[in-house]
Amino acid sequence: MIIDCHGHYTTAPAPHQDFRKKQLANFADPTLPFPADAIISDDQLRESIENNQLKLQQERGADLTIFSPRASAMAHHLGDSKVSQDWSRHCNDLIARVTELYPDNFIGVCQLPQSPDVDIKESIAELERCVNELGFVGCNLNPDPSGGHWTSKPLIDKSWYPLYEKMVELDIPAMVHVSSCCNENFHATGAHYINADTTAFMQFIQGDLFSDFPDLRLIIPHGGGAVPYHWGRYRGLADMLKQPPLSTHVMKNVFFDTCVYHQSGIDLLFKVIDVENILFGSEMVGAVRGIDPETGQYFDDTKRYVDNLSISDEDKHKVFELNARRVYPRLDQALKVKGL
Amino acid sequence: MIIDCHGHYTTAPAPHQDFRKKQLANFADPTLPFPADAIISDDQLRESIENNQLKLQQERGADLTIFSPRASAMAHHLGDSKVSQDWSRHCNDLIARVTELYPDNFIGVCQLPQSPDVDIKESIAELERCVNELGFVGCNLNPDPSGGHWTSKPLIDKSWYPLYEKMVELDIPAMVHVSSCCNENFHATGAHYINADTTAFMQFIQGDLFSDFPDLRLIIPHGGGAVPYHWGRYRGLADMLKQPPLSTHVMKNVFFDTCVYHQSGIDLLFKVIDVENILFGSEMVGAVRGIDPETGQYFDDTKRYVDNLSISDEDKHKVFELNARRVYPRLDQALKVKGL
Repeated sequence: MIIDCHGHYTTAPAPHQDFRKKQLANFADPTLPFPADAIISDDQLRESIENNQLKLQQERGADLTIFSPRASAMAHHLGDSKVSQDWSRHCNDLIARVTELYPDNFIGVCQLPQSPDVDIKESIAELERCVNELGFVGCNLNPDPSGGHWTSKPLIDKSWYPLYEKMVELDIPAMVHVSSCCNENFHATGAHYINADTTAFMQFIQGDLFSDFPDLRLIIPHGGGAVPYHWGRYRGLADMLKQPPLSTHVMKNVFFDTCVYHQSGIDLLFKVIDVENILFGSEMVGAVRGIDPETGQYFDDTKRYVDNLSISDEDKHKVFELNARRVYPRLDQALKVKGL
Repeated sequence: MIIDCHGHYTTAPAPHQDFRKKQLANFADPTLPFPADAIISDDQLRESIENNQLKLQQERGADLTIFSPRASAMAHHLGDSKVSQDWSRHCNDLIARVTELYPDNFIGVCQLPQSPDVDIKESIAELERCVNELGFVGCNLNPDPSGGHWTSKPLIDKSWYPLYEKMVELDIPAMVHVSSCCNENFHATGAHYINADTTAFMQFIQGDLFSDFPDLRLIIPHGGGAVPYHWGRYRGLADMLKQPPLSTHVMKNVFFDTCVYHQSGIDLLFKVIDVENILFGSEMVGAVRGIDPETGQYFDDTKRYVDNLSISDEDKHKVFELNARRVYPRLDQALKVKGL
């Protein structure tokens, strides 16, 4: 079985974005009407999925995608806490409907209703709803709800602990994933995403988060940002900061996906990072949608790169399935119920 | 000849930092005295260099370091424009003295007296002084003088153009290099540096800077941040943004150094980036000073990694010498005057 740990619903039907547009218009000018819930038929959902994520999943040979709302549309910096709560609920409900329509192909991960300067505790009710009522198996955690101004505390700060406590209680991991960016210095998918990945990893080196939460599990997407390429720097910085080796200090709890869009990058990832810490992911339909003229294949068809690796079948099995089942125990349970 | 394009004076004698401390104290409380210039003897300079940069240069087999003030101490976010002018002048003068004491081993690159929200034009006089009077061959350009808040315009914005015009006129390159960070999210050398490298590269993809300045040359340090590892993503994003291929759109003008502290990272760099675009650099004495327990060698002894590459002697010659002479024509001239 091949599990893609990183898929977003980037193709949601238009009424969903219309709702968002009107919601933000109402926030900017409360004399405008608050929009009614978007009316989206099952057929519209099917069309948006079958022509995109499901089609690509099947063409490329994956079986199941861990599926979350469009990351760039979370936009926690827009509106206020109430806006974020409403929007998150709508986004997560849409994911739930997709997982109900295609229970064998998609399983849900939720966005959190974060907002700048709003206590992370305010996100816990929605997390519990998604896990306990909608059958979701994880969440996306935005380390920078300000959208590129980085006004929050680092992820090792105690202000984040209530969320981590709840994650451990629910036995779910989080993918550390920023959203769109309102700082013109950072292109969203070309700089902000990758920078956030790198930043989060370095915060984990600086702190001692996993002594406090030995069972906490965090996925850093996009192949871990710059980290594998600079693995020597990070090992050296841990040493200079008098922290234990990364293998025990960070890598018992942190995992990277395979969203790296060329063979040499994937080769490096597998050369320096233990196979236990790598989860297959594609980020599709996502950041880069074109065909690589050098290979004639889609940039984000990351399964090809993993297939090409000279690693054992056992290791491929870990990357494609077993690691995801270990990191997302509720996914494992759901599969076992189906006899898988 | 082996030229290290990336060395900082991280070991300047204590009176230099004392001056800075008092300068900032005077800025915070103008009733405190403005400090007199630091008195530093040639012997103090010799001691600080011969026990550190010169010793390591010789032990590791390099000949000449392109030498600039300590990057983390530029701290353009502290004080105001006048403070930054004074401090830059002191730092650059110290570099000049080192290059006079060791003309065969060090050649100067200056820091610019940048300040948040201050026009880059204010940096031009110091640049001209360093190049025309002190014999410097380049400058370090901070894309984020705010120190981690990223309040400036992207490097492709026209507000930076006066500096680029002067750089082209003087025929000097800049290394894009941030300084220390006052945003607690970003560890300076573990996140802020690498993020800035990645950010700058993506800005160059988004813009069309090198059509306006076909002769402008910029070095992105630390092996280009996350860029080589995510080379497929950047090629794909250029395509999605309907920009020309990176080879013509960016890589005629942008160069990466070899400050990547493990063999696998250097291997990747040389696999995906054209050898014409790679300059040998070590960043020493710099970010990571320890010994890699996996190799028994210093992390930042980057010459070893390059020596280990299976590339032709001709290509090594480019990386160790010829590319630097091409990117820094004033260095080339200075060497030719010496018959080198």
